[in-house]
Amino acid sequence: MAKMMTEFSLIQRYFSRHSSTAELLSVGDDAAMLTPPLGHQLLACTDTLVAGRHFPLNTHPHAIGWKSVAVNLSDIAAMGGTAHSILLALSLPQIDEPWLQHFSDGLYACCEQFGVKLIGGDTTQSPQLSIGISALGFVPQGQGIPRSGAQVGDLIVLSGTVGDAAYALAQLKHQPDSAQQPLRHRLDYPTPRCTLGQQLAGIASSMIDVSDGLAQDLNHILTASKVGAVIELDHLPLSATLQHLPESEKWQYALCGGDDYELCFTISPQHYYALRAQPLPVNIQVIGQIQAQAGLQLLHAGSALDTSVQNLYLNGYQHFA
Amino acid sequence: MAKMMTEFSLIQRYFSRHSSTAELLSVGDDAAMLTPPLGHQLLACTDTLVAGRHFPLNTHPHAIGWKSVAVNLSDIAAMGGTAHSILLALSLPQIDEPWLQHFSDGLYACCEQFGVKLIGGDTTQSPQLSIGISALGFVPQGQGIPRSGAQVGDLIVLSGTVGDAAYALAQLKHQPDSAQQPLRHRLDYPTPRCTLGQQLAGIASSMIDVSDGLAQDLNHILTASKVGAVIELDHLPLSATLQHLPESEKWQYALCGGDDYELCFTISPQHYYALRAQPLPVNIQVIGQIQAQAGLQLLHAGSALDTSVQNLYLNGYQHFA
Repeated sequence: MAKMMTEFSLIQRYFSRHSSTAELLSVGDDAAMLTPPLGHQLLACTDTLVAGRHFPLNTHPHAIGWKSVAVNLSDIAAMGGTAHSILLALSLPQIDEPWLQHFSDGLYACCEQFGVKLIGGDTTQSPQLSIGISALGFVPQGQGIPRSGAQVGDLIVLSGTVGDAAYALAQLKHQPDSAQQPLRHRLDYPTPRCTLGQQLAGIASSMIDVSDGLAQDLNHILTASKVGAVIELDHLPLSATLQHLPESEKWQYALCGGDDYELCFTISPQHYYALRAQPLPVNIQVIGQIQAQAGLQLLHAGSALDTSVQNLYLNGYQHFA
Repeated sequence: MAKMMTEFSLIQRYFSRHSSTAELLSVGDDAAMLTPPLGHQLLACTDTLVAGRHFPLNTHPHAIGWKSVAVNLSDIAAMGGTAHSILLALSLPQIDEPWLQHFSDGLYACCEQFGVKLIGGDTTQSPQLSIGISALGFVPQGQGIPRSGAQVGDLIVLSGTVGDAAYALAQLKHQPDSAQQPLRHRLDYPTPRCTLGQQLAGIASSMIDVSDGLAQDLNHILTASKVGAVIELDHLPLSATLQHLPESEKWQYALCGGDDYELCFTISPQHYYALRAQPLPVNIQVIGQIQAQAGLQLLHAGSALDTSVQNLYLNGYQHFA
């Protein structure tokens, strides 16, 4: 039966749950159509997950579906936007119906948790499993948060904890069969910080989501904003598991570990204290400050690290390294 | 050197030509930001091209770049919209700089011809070369053209000629080295019918672009609109090369050949004659009419075809067949 199933019926079967939404045409149309809210700008981003590269090969398809959506919602959140909808570009080696069922369940679970609709897509046969998602969102006119707005004196703030996903991935390499290890959910089911991102619209001066590692992602802010930063290692928010690791290992996970999808933003002290007075959906932590001197300077207990130690801690992940 | 090139510098180097546009943030931001025009609805679509599946393996990278954009602009045109911008999700086995140079040249050539900007993207390493493009466009409120609007009595109209790309692909299988054969440009450099699509906004009752073959794509209109159609084979617009083929072969290419990216639309006779009075950017041809009786009925010189002959002509292409 699977061999007879066409692309069209495949899409109809697994990816049509949102197609009856009044504002949208059906998933079967050439393009989805929607009405932008007045006074808002449109945000658009795309992120592709390749099996074995962006998730371990033994990842449950439900988690693959979740994560494919989550990493894109994280990009919209990092602009201060509210995610509205996604498009799915799915490349599959063959049609595996149980896999598709779990994958689509995971994809819709993430969509539903964050109020997002699947509005269109494309499925193709390919030797390589890969999932491309494009996300659309909206932000009130003029309130989108670029990477380029950090100002000298701004605080550098991080949500949640960092290094967890990289630690889980490393553990998995040592114990491939252990799905039960404590931080695996941080790798498989990242939480995009959608509500926090929206709260920061018009308030944060710059923002990025931590997908490639804190040091590398913060560096994109510093480069785009033409500023530098000082970070206090002792202020890096770590989960209980990471807190018990040896110093060097702990800081490498926190600074270079990718895939956490926490928000790293800069904000004036005045706006920061106003923000703290509100209820927040996730813990946030000041980890350092923007300075005029270029580059990233690490402190430990208030003292600058030796250059050799700092370099050891800052070996960031590169997609094509 | 190539091994040292990071994703970031790769994007900066080949895909930053439009990033200085005033209305956009830089390609380096987490999401692109743009301002929707007042009184318009947003269109969004995505299409992935996999090497060896959606283009022959020996396709020049310039043509791959062009075609990746063109097929998406065609989807926006098929909704009556004006394409605005694209996002690129590029999966590459390795960094091949001459390839990237030609690919990006072809991609930008298509963008520039149709007034579209590359506003964001994502590059990943993958064993399989694949190019995912998502396109955004706008259409005046209420004028988008769905597949579901065909009415009994509407004319069925086709732009350009059909079957050319499939014929070129078949020739290529027989003579893999011949880049010079006459219809190869129709396969490698499809022309999205952007201007015609815009002219049809608010006028055509339904529309689709011919990507999988006329019979199959028209059938999507018939199913969505809950109507049937009669097509006169003698009215199918064919290029000179196809006109000289034997009957059966000719009609199979015209009815089932994919990848032409012509527009197939339905329109009331009244609107059709008004349209013909305007200058048009491409030839259009009435090929049949919508009728109440379900299914697709083929005529030849005014007479219905035998069912067995009709079935022979209607073996459409299926992605997962």
